[in-house]
Amino acid sequence: MKQDLSIGLLGLGTVGTGVVKLIEQHQEELVHQLGCQIKVKKVLIRNVEKDRDVQIDPTSITTNPEDVLNDPDIDVIVEVMGGIDEARQYILEALQNRKHVVTANKDLIALYGPELQEIAWKNQCDLLYEASVGGGIPILRGLTDGLVADRIQKLMGIVNGTTNYILTKMMDEGVSYEEALKTAQELGFAEADPTSDVAGLDAARKMAILARLAFLTDVSLNDVEVEGITNLSSEDLNYGKTLGYTMKLIGMAQCQDERIEVSVQPTFIAKSHPLAAVKDEFNAVYVNGEAIGETMFYGPGAGSLPTATAVVSDVIAAIKNMQLGINGRNLSKPRFKRKLKSLDQRFGQYYIRLHLKDQVGAFSQLTTAFSELDISFKRIIQTPDKRDELAEIIIVTHQVSLDRFQQALLKLNEMPVVKQVNSYYRVEGENK
Amino acid sequence: MKQDLSIGLLGLGTVGTGVVKLIEQHQEELVHQLGCQIKVKKVLIRNVEKDRDVQIDPTSITTNPEDVLNDPDIDVIVEVMGGIDEARQYILEALQNRKHVVTANKDLIALYGPELQEIAWKNQCDLLYEASVGGGIPILRGLTDGLVADRIQKLMGIVNGTTNYILTKMMDEGVSYEEALKTAQELGFAEADPTSDVAGLDAARKMAILARLAFLTDVSLNDVEVEGITNLSSEDLNYGKTLGYTMKLIGMAQCQDERIEVSVQPTFIAKSHPLAAVKDEFNAVYVNGEAIGETMFYGPGAGSLPTATAVVSDVIAAIKNMQLGINGRNLSKPRFKRKLKSLDQRFGQYYIRLHLKDQVGAFSQLTTAFSELDISFKRIIQTPDKRDELAEIIIVTHQVSLDRFQQALLKLNEMPVVKQVNSYYRVEGENK
Repeated sequence: MKQDLSIGLLGLGTVGTGVVKLIEQHQEELVHQLGCQIKVKKVLIRNVEKDRDVQIDPTSITTNPEDVLNDPDIDVIVEVMGGIDEARQYILEALQNRKHVVTANKDLIALYGPELQEIAWKNQCDLLYEASVGGGIPILRGLTDGLVADRIQKLMGIVNGTTNYILTKMMDEGVSYEEALKTAQELGFAEADPTSDVAGLDAARKMAILARLAFLTDVSLNDVEVEGITNLSSEDLNYGKTLGYTMKLIGMAQCQDERIEVSVQPTFIAKSHPLAAVKDEFNAVYVNGEAIGETMFYGPGAGSLPTATAVVSDVIAAIKNMQLGINGRNLSKPRFKRKLKSLDQRFGQYYIRLHLKDQVGAFSQLTTAFSELDISFKRIIQTPDKRDELAEIIIVTHQVSLDRFQQALLKLNEMPVVKQVNSYYRVEGENK
Repeated sequence: MKQDLSIGLLGLGTVGTGVVKLIEQHQEELVHQLGCQIKVKKVLIRNVEKDRDVQIDPTSITTNPEDVLNDPDIDVIVEVMGGIDEARQYILEALQNRKHVVTANKDLIALYGPELQEIAWKNQCDLLYEASVGGGIPILRGLTDGLVADRIQKLMGIVNGTTNYILTKMMDEGVSYEEALKTAQELGFAEADPTSDVAGLDAARKMAILARLAFLTDVSLNDVEVEGITNLSSEDLNYGKTLGYTMKLIGMAQCQDERIEVSVQPTFIAKSHPLAAVKDEFNAVYVNGEAIGETMFYGPGAGSLPTATAVVSDVIAAIKNMQLGINGRNLSKPRFKRKLKSLDQRFGQYYIRLHLKDQVGAFSQLTTAFSELDISFKRIIQTPDKRDELAEIIIVTHQVSLDRFQQALLKLNEMPVVKQVNSYYRVEGENK
């Protein structure tokens, strides 16, 4: 048997304790894979007093990062502390000390991934971050290895479990946003401060990482357009249901002719689309490739042990690479410099809800306005709204370019017969 | 740029033409990945006269296998000719000539995979077969790399597109088996002789391969219990629908304490289970891991270009390994010698349909028989069958061991009040 491998852990929270448990519980399988044992030699923690759900040798615990980062026995550093500045500094130091780094830190990788990757390459080190997107789902490997021969055109991801849980409750059980959020918090699916999840920021970070790997280009977090789920109304969700849609927070990334488009926004998904069946706290990434057509990766997007499986799969990869002497070759450099698509290069179907004054010819003025912009309808529902002598109109358009859709919105807002445009959402998929 | 890499193709059918097209269409991406071009130098075909849906240099075509297998310029042999004996002989020769082999041949790998793998290892060659299961879905890599840190307990796969297409038509549109098969044949989803698909043999081969990789043990094709879809009745499908199930041909593999169970059988899947949403010709593999919980890989299980993406991803992997000098290290050896589970170690839920004589006390005798075997019911439906003074009874059991379930079947067949047990199927998943 080869010499035992020592790893250092930065952080011992939810994911960190999962990593310690998994390495212990699956020791036999790990020895089979690697021909040696993996030992967690040092663990950096902030608070020694805190109770933790794991047995760990007290002598391996430290509050001094240097004990982990400078230990010559440690070959692989696992960063599961979260946060940005401190984590970045430790990872930089680890890479400069020629230690391989495995991280679950999506915030850091979304912001500094390419920079850290360059430094890892320079030091012939691995920098691996499978756990940063989709928890336990092996989606990054799926893109970089499994679909390496294809040209990926579009990704759609449900990459935030908190919002998917909330939206599932709202759609399937008709509960309010506030109530769904409260239940999510009670069950541990949402943080006390849920802003980063419900505003779509967490999903945006993951989409930046996915888009980089799918298209092999330099996507930055700023490229991602973000809209959260806090303003959804039960009216829209009910109309959506009637139309055969379910509401999801969809991260979308598209690439065509080296131009990209990345967004996170509440989206109506046709019930027959595979993403519509992704419920509760689960995550999924749906991929359209030129050759493969469609494929989807589904699983738990968070959780201690599920996320730990992704972290430890990276640790195993880094150690196998060490044994073969090939570290630092894990990912391809960008293939082209990304340009963003302009509005007239972006297309989508839209759902619009608006209030029309209930007067003769109003409806005809509305349809004329759309047809002048060459926007055609797939579905229209008109219901009288008794309160104010208004008609409530729901429109689902066919594919339309985003610039033309925005022109339509402007025009609608200027039309005297239109009381107001209440809401509009992207629509994906076709019900048969 | 590094020297161009030459590959040899054995076969130029559906998958072979896909491989040629994909390498041509994605040349730019391949050069980015590998730093060199991939060239299809020689193609072995049987019939020179046949029209093919691909442009290929006539001088690269040959009917003599030695032209491909002995060409010193060729580093990777891609076997996409199908069949067993000839393919096996060519692959053996290729490996002995120290050429890496990529194959899409599930029949061959199911029967001779371990033997060929040993020979590949001895010759420090790669033997890769991602395309043998689930077409374009990167499921084998998902198991061997993505879920490497977990202990996989159970797999359920919809791994045959033909039968899934037929069952989708039967369940969703109420058409007969014969009609669905005919449509599948017209659309090219079923062969003229569909036996291997509809009898479950094709799925069994894929399950043997999946179980080997998931559990890292020596599963043989003979270990797989197989039942096809040819005897399904519309009565059962309708009752299943009423109960909230859909019928799927499910390949199932379980492992516990180094004991395995692998089967392919028509199974009722609860509508809320992710596998229930896998429709038409699509495939999916659903995995239960000790740490990850549940995860699923979904996509096209066949087709020229989708399958070619899996083949070419293997070609890329073999070439990257060549560049790094690490070929022949791709898969782990078996971790233990598999034993099969005995009947009392196998558990399942079952749906049973039977006809009971419509006489006083019959129902009570039935329930007593089950309760004596400690089998409890989850659902019972009784409907009178007017024709013969019989009552039709549908029972869904809770989890029961297979030996006890078989005892129950024997007992039912001996009971005078039971006219006959019409059918029984495994049930998976719970509807909420």
